[in-house]
Amino acid sequence: MRTTKNPFSPTASDEPDRLAEIYRAAAQIICEKGYDATSMNDIAEAVGITKSGLYHHVSGKRNLLFNIMSFGMDSLEEEVIIPAQVTDDAEQRIRSIIRNHVHLITSRSTSLGNSPVTILVDEVAGLTLAQRRKIDQRKRAYVNLIRDALSKLKEEDKLRDLDVTAATFSLLGMILWLSRWYKPQGRLNPDQLSDEVTKIALSGLLRQEP
Amino acid sequence: MRTTKNPFSPTASDEPDRLAEIYRAAAQIICEKGYDATSMNDIAEAVGITKSGLYHHVSGKRNLLFNIMSFGMDSLEEEVIIPAQVTDDAEQRIRSIIRNHVHLITSRSTSLGNSPVTILVDEVAGLTLAQRRKIDQRKRAYVNLIRDALSKLKEEDKLRDLDVTAATFSLLGMILWLSRWYKPQGRLNPDQLSDEVTKIALSGLLRQEP
Repeated sequence: MRTTKNPFSPTASDEPDRLAEIYRAAAQIICEKGYDATSMNDIAEAVGITKSGLYHHVSGKRNLLFNIMSFGMDSLEEEVIIPAQVTDDAEQRIRSIIRNHVHLITSRSTSLGNSPVTILVDEVAGLTLAQRRKIDQRKRAYVNLIRDALSKLKEEDKLRDLDVTAATFSLLGMILWLSRWYKPQGRLNPDQLSDEVTKIALSGLLRQEP
Repeated sequence: MRTTKNPFSPTASDEPDRLAEIYRAAAQIICEKGYDATSMNDIAEAVGITKSGLYHHVSGKRNLLFNIMSFGMDSLEEEVIIPAQVTDDAEQRIRSIIRNHVHLITSRSTSLGNSPVTILVDEVAGLTLAQRRKIDQRKRAYVNLIRDALSKLKEEDKLRDLDVTAATFSLLGMILWLSRWYKPQGRLNPDQLSDEVTKIALSGLLRQEP
């Protein structure tokens, strides 16, 4: 599902960037107007191409929605999941997940105070059942990555006396909710915000050093 | 906006319950199908009344969406905001907010693992601008209640060295995310879950007792 740049083909190499632009612009207008109320015309206008130009890139609105979600999950994989797997240390893994996921969301935030691609990843009502299964499976893999790291911390007696599932979703809630309130023009920059969330989450989840 | 039962009028006294039923059933089907894809016919069917019966209660789909959100905010006010204001102690107020808001969400969760009314409160794209302002104003009042309590804890030197806004939204994220993952048939009952969230949130936000 991920697209990689091919240095030998300039056309192919521009395509991923163009697609990313289309997905981001489409996500933003879908968040503003709602999925069903947004027409392919609206999206073409937001992207700044003709409707037939848009159909050159995507075959229809439902596939576009699925592509936006897959694009969101690709970014999560590249910028959060893969870097987290570099270390085997569970605490370092959790720290890496928080820092990179906060950065992923804040770097994609619009001035309206939301991160449309992240929000859309939850709008599964517009998908076919087969598409929904694919997205759900990728989400589950991410949940499991976090849960496994917290389980390991529990085994190492570093986790507070907590239920691992409740801890997993509390952490995810803290991070994902950012996509609905963080404004780039606000007081905290992405680094400060990632420090704040790291402090709250780790103090909440981990036993204090003796 | 809140409706109160009138003990002298059995009809008036049944109306709020019937409306609550309609709002919950409508919220659930809107969450499943998406707002625009859901017809008044679908909603009437889900509620188990005729379409004209449904129009007896609500004047149209957009107003229904607004009514569902207002109903959600009414529940929040009655079951979370007002009880929190009983105490002036900031830590007790935060504890009360966590416990009651977790209970509000878990008690409304369907077996599909979501709390449709809570989720819909964020689907503001379907509202008129005036309706959106009303809902936003009520949400802001709730955010401020939490922020003020955390500011007071900061003054009392009970809060960790944290930015109050980041702390407010991290807490809200932990609680509100429950509406998207908690399944009543799961391992944790609402009391246990509210204990878990309280532990994570308070350990994350407050300095430890010396």
